[in-house]
Amino acid sequence: MRSHIMSARDIEFLLYEWLDVETLTTRSRFADHSRASFDDVLRLSADLAAEYFAPHFRKSDLEEPEFDGTSVHVIPEVKTALDAFAKADLVGAAMDYELGGTQLPHVVFQACMAWFYAANVSTTGYQLLTVGAANLLLAHGSPEQVARYVKPMVDGRFLGTMALSEPQAGSSLADITTKAVLQGDGTYRIFGRKMWISGGDHELSDNIIHLVLARIPGAPSGTKGISLFIVPKFLVGDDGQLGERNDVILAGINHKMGFRGTVNTAPVFGDGAFTPGNAPGAVGYLVGEPHRGLAYMFHMMNEARIGVGLGATAIGYTGYLKSLEYARSRPQGRPVTNRGEGAQVPLIEHPDVRRMLLAQKAYVEGALGLELFCGKLVDEVKTAPDGEARSRAQILLDVLTPIAKSWPSQWCLVANDLAIQIHGGAGYTRDYDVEQHYRDNRLNPIHEGTHGIQALDLLGRRAIAGGGASLSALAQTMCETADRADQTGDVELRDFATRLRRAAERLTSVTATVWADGDAAVALANATVYLEAAGHVVLAWIWLEQALTAHGKAGDFYDGKRNAARFFFYWELPRTAPQFDLLENRDRTVLDAASSSF
Amino acid sequence: MRSHIMSARDIEFLLYEWLDVETLTTRSRFADHSRASFDDVLRLSADLAAEYFAPHFRKSDLEEPEFDGTSVHVIPEVKTALDAFAKADLVGAAMDYELGGTQLPHVVFQACMAWFYAANVSTTGYQLLTVGAANLLLAHGSPEQVARYVKPMVDGRFLGTMALSEPQAGSSLADITTKAVLQGDGTYRIFGRKMWISGGDHELSDNIIHLVLARIPGAPSGTKGISLFIVPKFLVGDDGQLGERNDVILAGINHKMGFRGTVNTAPVFGDGAFTPGNAPGAVGYLVGEPHRGLAYMFHMMNEARIGVGLGATAIGYTGYLKSLEYARSRPQGRPVTNRGEGAQVPLIEHPDVRRMLLAQKAYVEGALGLELFCGKLVDEVKTAPDGEARSRAQILLDVLTPIAKSWPSQWCLVANDLAIQIHGGAGYTRDYDVEQHYRDNRLNPIHEGTHGIQALDLLGRRAIAGGGASLSALAQTMCETADRADQTGDVELRDFATRLRRAAERLTSVTATVWADGDAAVALANATVYLEAAGHVVLAWIWLEQALTAHGKAGDFYDGKRNAARFFFYWELPRTAPQFDLLENRDRTVLDAASSSF
Repeated sequence: MRSHIMSARDIEFLLYEWLDVETLTTRSRFADHSRASFDDVLRLSADLAAEYFAPHFRKSDLEEPEFDGTSVHVIPEVKTALDAFAKADLVGAAMDYELGGTQLPHVVFQACMAWFYAANVSTTGYQLLTVGAANLLLAHGSPEQVARYVKPMVDGRFLGTMALSEPQAGSSLADITTKAVLQGDGTYRIFGRKMWISGGDHELSDNIIHLVLARIPGAPSGTKGISLFIVPKFLVGDDGQLGERNDVILAGINHKMGFRGTVNTAPVFGDGAFTPGNAPGAVGYLVGEPHRGLAYMFHMMNEARIGVGLGATAIGYTGYLKSLEYARSRPQGRPVTNRGEGAQVPLIEHPDVRRMLLAQKAYVEGALGLELFCGKLVDEVKTAPDGEARSRAQILLDVLTPIAKSWPSQWCLVANDLAIQIHGGAGYTRDYDVEQHYRDNRLNPIHEGTHGIQALDLLGRRAIAGGGASLSALAQTMCETADRADQTGDVELRDFATRLRRAAERLTSVTATVWADGDAAVALANATVYLEAAGHVVLAWIWLEQALTAHGKAGDFYDGKRNAARFFFYWELPRTAPQFDLLENRDRTVLDAASSSF
Repeated sequence: MRSHIMSARDIEFLLYEWLDVETLTTRSRFADHSRASFDDVLRLSADLAAEYFAPHFRKSDLEEPEFDGTSVHVIPEVKTALDAFAKADLVGAAMDYELGGTQLPHVVFQACMAWFYAANVSTTGYQLLTVGAANLLLAHGSPEQVARYVKPMVDGRFLGTMALSEPQAGSSLADITTKAVLQGDGTYRIFGRKMWISGGDHELSDNIIHLVLARIPGAPSGTKGISLFIVPKFLVGDDGQLGERNDVILAGINHKMGFRGTVNTAPVFGDGAFTPGNAPGAVGYLVGEPHRGLAYMFHMMNEARIGVGLGATAIGYTGYLKSLEYARSRPQGRPVTNRGEGAQVPLIEHPDVRRMLLAQKAYVEGALGLELFCGKLVDEVKTAPDGEARSRAQILLDVLTPIAKSWPSQWCLVANDLAIQIHGGAGYTRDYDVEQHYRDNRLNPIHEGTHGIQALDLLGRRAIAGGGASLSALAQTMCETADRADQTGDVELRDFATRLRRAAERLTSVTATVWADGDAAVALANATVYLEAAGHVVLAWIWLEQALTAHGKAGDFYDGKRNAARFFFYWELPRTAPQFDLLENRDRTVLDAASSSF
């Protein structure tokens, strides 16, 4: 049922009541848009998600893609759904008119995507990758590459992949060995093996455009010698017609715990299965300049990571809605105060079940707020009228990105765990969606930079960038929210403000302490604890924003926001105190534990 | 590999260096035993687990039991393993000689079982249920029932089930409606549907003995009107020969997230598929007295719950060992201090990976310590020479049981999550065991009383039993350990002791505060937080015990114990501070959140 996929009401609250995205329509890029056009595309997304994506959610798990040694077979519902998505102009929704896009604000597009992720994350995965590949080419490809490869993606004829990892190089991209050899005509021939490549082969589209990281012989070692190439499954002629089959095949596919509908592959480039142009190697086309491939990739990383965070959020959110429905409808037991007397009551009447619902609500509605806030920052970076606003948005986006990726990946998985627990034994069976949500969501702390990688990125780079300017900007932003809370005069909001201000101060001071002597080994040893504490502080701020937006408004919906904010401030934020203590002590337990003592 | 199933060295440390189980051999019940006989059965268990249980661990997941409408089909390796287990006299290992048992101390038997759970929890599940059913009949059945049903279980010919839950009565056993009608010959006829019954049908044994909760018409309502019955799949004659097929069939089987090798069923009793004795209904035999069924069940609950905790522990433990092996052997990335230079280093060289290993180690070795400590309490209750020691053991066992069930179910699942994370993408595939361990272990917070039920049991009953005598005994026991730590003069151990004493005091005072006005609704609203905080305090104590045992001993193994104890005291115990704050404030966030506001 549509109301169990996502909450249209909450999206409305976040977009219009809180983030005021309607004002974006004053910017020239969005001038053709209006609240009505935003609502139309949101409603369309909800409709398509319910009609084409949700119905095969379980089937795509039970009948996962199969590889017969030549082709990958995917259940037909996936192609029908992807075609419907493209036909509704959603691939290019946030792209320029000239590409066939509709110049929708990124934040509204993200809200649309939440519907699809929630309905069926693994089918949506094919389009997520395609949008990512398209954006990468839009930013760094030539106009000719854009016309040849991006346009058909927007039209729904091509799908894309991101071919980064290799068997020996997962998190450590510096170690990739795939080779790109320059040919006389300026093209390259690619040789090598990739691993963990989602959408690496299938018959869901006319063509597959692989964006491949590879080394040109003689390139500098490490991260500074990696280039980015377009490697299409079928070569594309100047007229846009498909030509020869390129030399990219699969060594096999991976069988995952969840996210099963998205085929995950081990592609081989240039192994001789095909010989395009009667020469060995897969034909590849350099994107931008040589050796800058990783920089290009990282340039797109913010949006990709927010995309992962949003996916994790949506999976958590739909699990919450489903467990809420179950808790309202399943009678079981009686209140502790009248044990054994009267009829059984619905699960939701038990405080411990309400705890599990309130925790989920605090996690998923908080995470959705964070993701949409970051989505709006993307729009601000691109379209804010003055340069200072744009740069402030960029600074905030930089420091928030590792949290926007990791926090929902951690806590919306906890939400899915609680959704199962509310279902009891039923939640542990494949008869209920929550079982699959939990398995699907377990991927998110791993891909697009593991949890630990996000932590090193935050504490080792972003939090201290510009002498700590990003972190200061974040702390200042949080304190401004606290100031607004104080101004309401509301006792509870003022209490939240005090707690938030204290946490923000602690975050700033702990960052300085951790880096006090500049010893990276010590500073970064407990980076994950830092990431998690910073995440909870940020989410407390997001909840204060939501509580402020609900302030003075009556009714169940707004009461729910106040309850969730209360839960976050009283149950969740206090978790950071021992985390900050540990960081402040520069705890060496982990650093000093000898590898031989395990 | 055997060394990746469980750690024989750690079991040796816990049993002999810490718990001194050798002294049990001075008790008459265990007089025939010795360190050598304990070691023999431990080695035998390790051998059988490695030879018969581990090899089909993945196969029993991929080829889960199938129900064709008449019979349940289970892969043949399961029967081979169960037969080997029974043939090695393990079903009755802890039972009396006269039953064919070997009177092994319970604590040693638990250590043996850890090997089987770790190797293949779902195959072991069939025997776990059988041992549980046998113990229940030993405690409450007639000598004739013991001879007829328990003996063949010990011999490996019969398997057992616990048929408690019904579709409308999961956690709420007061609401079961299965009916038991007395016949002229003193037997009963059973009519009704059960749900979530593991091992409810299969062809792994000659017979299946269901222990069924049902109501005799006219019985008091609620929990005081439930009786316990033996319902065999095939009637057993006076001569022990199998007779007519009883009227119990399956409505279907449940398809689970994990634990797939143990068939989980929805049995129907007395639906007319068979008519034993040409009369309707499934033939059932009353165990003990009418209306005391639930009391009998709860009497066995301590051991069953410790069994679940041990199973969760073993799954966590083997996942730890496997991720440790992976971390030692997989090269990936470089230390943060020399990024990009030199060869890749093994994962274990990264502090964040060591954090994930140390956390797992602290959880799984701590949990194993707790489970074996409780196992030894079972022996003390049965065989301690003086009455005071027996009663003290019983008091401690009562208060520790909900923690022994829930703590490993929560934290060894976290351990499995970390084991996946260390593997990266590989851990998310079905090519690595850790993927399955995580799914298998997710059952444990649900069955044998959910996490929330354990919380109500601890805070609502056990912690306040006898005016808080149990909790005082626990606190006193913990303080005695702290005193011993102080006496060592070791600075670190004294610091641990101080922290433990403070936590124990806080636990005691918070318990009083929570119950200050006797309002159960308020007191129990946050019972789960109480359970979790109490669990961490108990585990800190277990770690201080282990650190004390390692004190003064040199080498990697003992250093590892010290590291894990340090991790627990500095990283884990501090989590309880905000939990105790919340409880002390008698936080009403959850209690007051209106159901309509979700």
